[in-house]
Amino acid sequence: MKTLSENRCFGGTQGVYSHTSDATGTQMTFGLFKPEHATGAVLWYLSGLTCTHENAMTKAGLQGWAANAGLSLVFPDTSPRGESVPDDDDYAMGQGAGFYVDASQGEWARHFQMESYITKDLPEVVFTAFDLDDTRQGITGHSMGGHGALTLALKEPTRYRSVSALAPICNPSASDWGTPQLTAYTGRPASHDATVLLTDGAHLPPALIDTGTSDQFYDKLGTAAFAAALAETKSEATLNLRRGYDHSYFFVSTFAPDHVAFHAEHLA
Amino acid sequence: MKTLSENRCFGGTQGVYSHTSDATGTQMTFGLFKPEHATGAVLWYLSGLTCTHENAMTKAGLQGWAANAGLSLVFPDTSPRGESVPDDDDYAMGQGAGFYVDASQGEWARHFQMESYITKDLPEVVFTAFDLDDTRQGITGHSMGGHGALTLALKEPTRYRSVSALAPICNPSASDWGTPQLTAYTGRPASHDATVLLTDGAHLPPALIDTGTSDQFYDKLGTAAFAAALAETKSEATLNLRRGYDHSYFFVSTFAPDHVAFHAEHLA
Repeated sequence: MKTLSENRCFGGTQGVYSHTSDATGTQMTFGLFKPEHATGAVLWYLSGLTCTHENAMTKAGLQGWAANAGLSLVFPDTSPRGESVPDDDDYAMGQGAGFYVDASQGEWARHFQMESYITKDLPEVVFTAFDLDDTRQGITGHSMGGHGALTLALKEPTRYRSVSALAPICNPSASDWGTPQLTAYTGRPASHDATVLLTDGAHLPPALIDTGTSDQFYDKLGTAAFAAALAETKSEATLNLRRGYDHSYFFVSTFAPDHVAFHAEHLA
Repeated sequence: MKTLSENRCFGGTQGVYSHTSDATGTQMTFGLFKPEHATGAVLWYLSGLTCTHENAMTKAGLQGWAANAGLSLVFPDTSPRGESVPDDDDYAMGQGAGFYVDASQGEWARHFQMESYITKDLPEVVFTAFDLDDTRQGITGHSMGGHGALTLALKEPTRYRSVSALAPICNPSASDWGTPQLTAYTGRPASHDATVLLTDGAHLPPALIDTGTSDQFYDKLGTAAFAAALAETKSEATLNLRRGYDHSYFFVSTFAPDHVAFHAEHLA
């Protein structure tokens, strides 16, 4: 692991690091915020389409709330990157659009192993290099990252004690934010769909979802299907439909304190 | 209006009063809590099947929170009562089971005018007898009372600034807690169904819903259909699915502070 930068931030340190990932076969970059009084609990923040590790780190305003709660934050990248890594003209496919799955098809299979990266490779690096507690992990994310947070929590029921999401894509097998990409990567979009996984019996940890009613991508998210699935499965969850908020980081930063508090409570 | 009792309660007064209602053609009894430092804002609490004005007044634990918030509380009865009023052997029909609609059919039509009672007769009494502000009204309720709160808020979009519900019946036209009764009373169960009204375009004020995942009547409530309708209509709402809580007043009293705080914020 190589340190690319470290900045003092809310009394702690916001670092950016790179390492070689076996899963993706590339150099990967991630951000990690460690507060001065770290409890050891970790919140993973998965970003949305087009984002790198940097967007949420600079725009979501999470660090101040996390510092108060003693929570460390990890900001992974959203895909493998580099000249040897396949890409697509569509912003929603290829680099910056890994959808947090392990690709098994075509040109994507070699590097696009983001599920393994987030749940195996990067945790190994993080829990080796930093004094953090791998028994107290929560996961959150925005948009495609919300899809990642929900599906990884459903797929790994013992890894994350709590899950939250901001404007998540939560029924991707019924959306053009999901179906083309998950089909190209894996051939099985429904296998990576939070609504389907939940309805089929996967266990969801305690969950908090916020989505804005003025989200310009509302129809791509599948909120109604996921809301019904939460109620049908009697899942422990809070769904907030926030009047007037859109899909931007202004929305994310507004509800960041609620999400940090939610995870801090479950990871205490 | 006749005073039946007044008790000192959290520095204010918990009263029970009776009056003659033109709508129901009967004597009606209601509870009203007025805090010492009343702001004038009023929260209507509609009770569930088999309840009188008294159950929530003695078991929901609302007064302490309402006193701190300066909120007055009204606890109406759930139906007309008396020997001349029709009843049914089923606890979910007739006396104690008015479903907050105006009956238009058969023996029920004469007295079962609970929608008019809650939205016209009783407000007239309350706002005449007590120094309260009819421009700042919120409505909540439990079970059948949650159905009442949601449907009256949807039917009277300018009357209530905020609506909440605890374990509400929210899709009664698909439930045996609703379909037989609303059919007998009105012949049109869908016209008094919160999910249908919302989907058909009625405006919902800001809404807070709590339902327990161990509710013994979960399948009668229609929570999934209403959750989907909230998301489909982009309504400003929070839905909390509370792990392990059932249908009882232990559940209601646990989340009473959240509901009082929610209404106090919107009625400030």
